[in-house]
Amino acid sequence: MRRLYHMPLSPFSRKIRLVLAEKKLEVALIEERVWERRLDFLRLNPAGDVPVLVEPDGTVLADSAAIFEYLEETCPEPRLLPDAHLERAEARRLVGWFDGKFNAEVTDTLVSERALKRLMRAGHPDSARVKAGARAIKTHLEYVGWLVERRHWLAGERLTIADFAAAAHLSCLDFIGDVPWEVSDAAREWYARVKSRPAFRSLLSDHLPGFSPPPHYADPDF
Amino acid sequence: MRRLYHMPLSPFSRKIRLVLAEKKLEVALIEERVWERRLDFLRLNPAGDVPVLVEPDGTVLADSAAIFEYLEETCPEPRLLPDAHLERAEARRLVGWFDGKFNAEVTDTLVSERALKRLMRAGHPDSARVKAGARAIKTHLEYVGWLVERRHWLAGERLTIADFAAAAHLSCLDFIGDVPWEVSDAAREWYARVKSRPAFRSLLSDHLPGFSPPPHYADPDF
Repeated sequence: MRRLYHMPLSPFSRKIRLVLAEKKLEVALIEERVWERRLDFLRLNPAGDVPVLVEPDGTVLADSAAIFEYLEETCPEPRLLPDAHLERAEARRLVGWFDGKFNAEVTDTLVSERALKRLMRAGHPDSARVKAGARAIKTHLEYVGWLVERRHWLAGERLTIADFAAAAHLSCLDFIGDVPWEVSDAAREWYARVKSRPAFRSLLSDHLPGFSPPPHYADPDF
Repeated sequence: MRRLYHMPLSPFSRKIRLVLAEKKLEVALIEERVWERRLDFLRLNPAGDVPVLVEPDGTVLADSAAIFEYLEETCPEPRLLPDAHLERAEARRLVGWFDGKFNAEVTDTLVSERALKRLMRAGHPDSARVKAGARAIKTHLEYVGWLVERRHWLAGERLTIADFAAAAHLSCLDFIGDVPWEVSDAAREWYARVKSRPAFRSLLSDHLPGFSPPPHYADPDF
């Protein structure tokens, strides 16, 4: 069976878990505490980060964008990229938005400060960084709302990898109670739609010792 | 004609300039000082970063990974991704390595501290960050050397987007004299090969007021 080395609060891991589940590809999840820099794991991926996908024949794939494109090319149904070139570019632009800009300004900041530091026993959250992340997420939620008021899904009329990338980040932040959903009804309605897909179930049942997600976390009709 | 909004020391812009030149696609370059946050530019790309490609019909594309995949799909010759799925994944993994890890640990650190701060008149370089970047680049050059001792090009037997992504970062750093080429002869030989391609010419003739690249910068046989 396929194996996926992941971390529960890694948005890049969550994106690939959503892709695998949507394409109905079975996978065994292996949690990797990347900060321990385990030698056998570094041999799989010298970059030292998750996700890493190991195919049934032992082939190793790293980097969430490379893994996604590989799965889309080799297991195309259901498609998570549109057919038209410009729409594909728009979906990939939004993946870049969330995995680049949103991650740097929000996820990496808030998840590192409020969750990873606790898991790694690496001290107290830096309140200036937490405040900056909490400010930035509002602008991003407004952008999500703006997009889905004009399109049914983030990148167009069909669900794409852009929706999964965005929802992967937001689900990590929702787990630690850090998404101010009141900022945008449209964004909240879109997230409820993504969250109600069967592919999302495994993410909603994640447990992390010492963390209690808010009651709405696993409720698709929040 | 196509227009590319770029910055001379943006590795993401340089990657797309190399792709356009290798595919023999003419483009007019427009320099964008992204830190000025020009409103007309933010309308083109709300993320506020370069590169942004505007097609002859006015279509706007942003995010260097999305732009690359779009150009590869619509102007496939010469191909910059291999044909086989696993080799494509390897090329994309290495693009992720350079545009993610290398950028965070090296380019973003050294170019920001040693060049952008001067261009933006934003104070003096932070010497701790400069030292960290100078340390990190050595490990990365060794990795480049290790790869090209085993393969002719970074991702395999043919030149791919991985070579252009890596060379785009290294050329920015070489411009400010920050690549310790003595660390790896194999990496240096590989870079000389990439640099001698006609597609590289436009990068080597870039001028930046107040900066004098080292004499070997524009010499393919350095």
